[in-house]
Amino acid sequence: MNSSIDTRQRLLVSAWELIYARSYAGVGVQAICDHAEGKKGSFYHYFPSKQALTLALPDDLMLDFEQDLIRQAFARNVPPMARFGQLIELIYQFQKEVFRTSGHLTGCPFGNLAAELSTLDEPIRLKLASIFDRLQEDFRATLHEAVISGALGGIDIPATARAMLAYLEGILLLAKTHNDPDLIRRLGPALVAIRVPGRS
Amino acid sequence: MNSSIDTRQRLLVSAWELIYARSYAGVGVQAICDHAEGKKGSFYHYFPSKQALTLALPDDLMLDFEQDLIRQAFARNVPPMARFGQLIELIYQFQKEVFRTSGHLTGCPFGNLAAELSTLDEPIRLKLASIFDRLQEDFRATLHEAVISGALGGIDIPATARAMLAYLEGILLLAKTHNDPDLIRRLGPALVAIRVPGRS
Repeated sequence: MNSSIDTRQRLLVSAWELIYARSYAGVGVQAICDHAEGKKGSFYHYFPSKQALTLALPDDLMLDFEQDLIRQAFARNVPPMARFGQLIELIYQFQKEVFRTSGHLTGCPFGNLAAELSTLDEPIRLKLASIFDRLQEDFRATLHEAVISGALGGIDIPATARAMLAYLEGILLLAKTHNDPDLIRRLGPALVAIRVPGRS
Repeated sequence: MNSSIDTRQRLLVSAWELIYARSYAGVGVQAICDHAEGKKGSFYHYFPSKQALTLALPDDLMLDFEQDLIRQAFARNVPPMARFGQLIELIYQFQKEVFRTSGHLTGCPFGNLAAELSTLDEPIRLKLASIFDRLQEDFRATLHEAVISGALGGIDIPATARAMLAYLEGILLLAKTHNDPDLIRRLGPALVAIRVPGRS
């Protein structure tokens, strides 16, 4: 049982590492197996296809992401809007570390897949859309707290949360294109200036 | 001479249409030739490889983009900050038309390539980084005008221009992921709220 979980998990981690460093099309089943030190046969025991594995990746990644990053960034011991600054700093530290070890700034794993596959693979597009919605939950809760506390007003909370996520994705895409982690720190502070007007 | 220019141009347009609808990896030289109704041999007469053609694409696209979109959006007959609203509306109309005819919102052609290829192909990454810089020129000039006119102040103009481009890229990525053109109109107005503080 444990070894079975281990193999499946090893394949997921292997796929995530390779696809994140390259692209979806740039990584084949054989490469995933080689990287996981598994056999091709065992891949198909756990996943019928690369697409099936890729559909399982975002939820798996989100568990790590929520554990390592979201929980820390949105800790309630700082004022609501300051939490977004913490999020930017944690994203910067993570991207900088990947950049330091690989020479590449790899951006947002969800955004990368969404840009490459949204017109090509409808199940993967829908999975990533649901992940983006989930990522906005903490944004919405935090904006709601800021409104209640009087720090913010007159905004459409769901639209502002989505706009903030869009800005984060855009920062990561530009930082990836310029291969420059400092761009995250330079542009990050404008995140809290974003608001979509409305009733809040 | 003209027929030679025509063939090269047909290959570029063909590649642009296919890669924009799918992805870089999802389109081969044969498909580009079939779509252009050319022969594979003539492809290699004009371009040594798919990479070489793709390096020529962004400049070619930018000519159309500047002609059709940038010039109209940044026309000087409206106040500086209102031009960004025009830009959003033109982008919305374009994406909506692609969506209407193809069923897919295809996002930003430069952003798509950047997300897919920045860690894989250094010449293409550098080309896209230079295109992003060029896209910011009108943003910077417009912000500068807004500062001179007193409509805006206390901002770092180059950083704010870059932040605005990041936001636009992020909106297009989310709109592509949700396959929803209306998201552009809903989030677009927050573009002018973005500012990176500094001396202007």
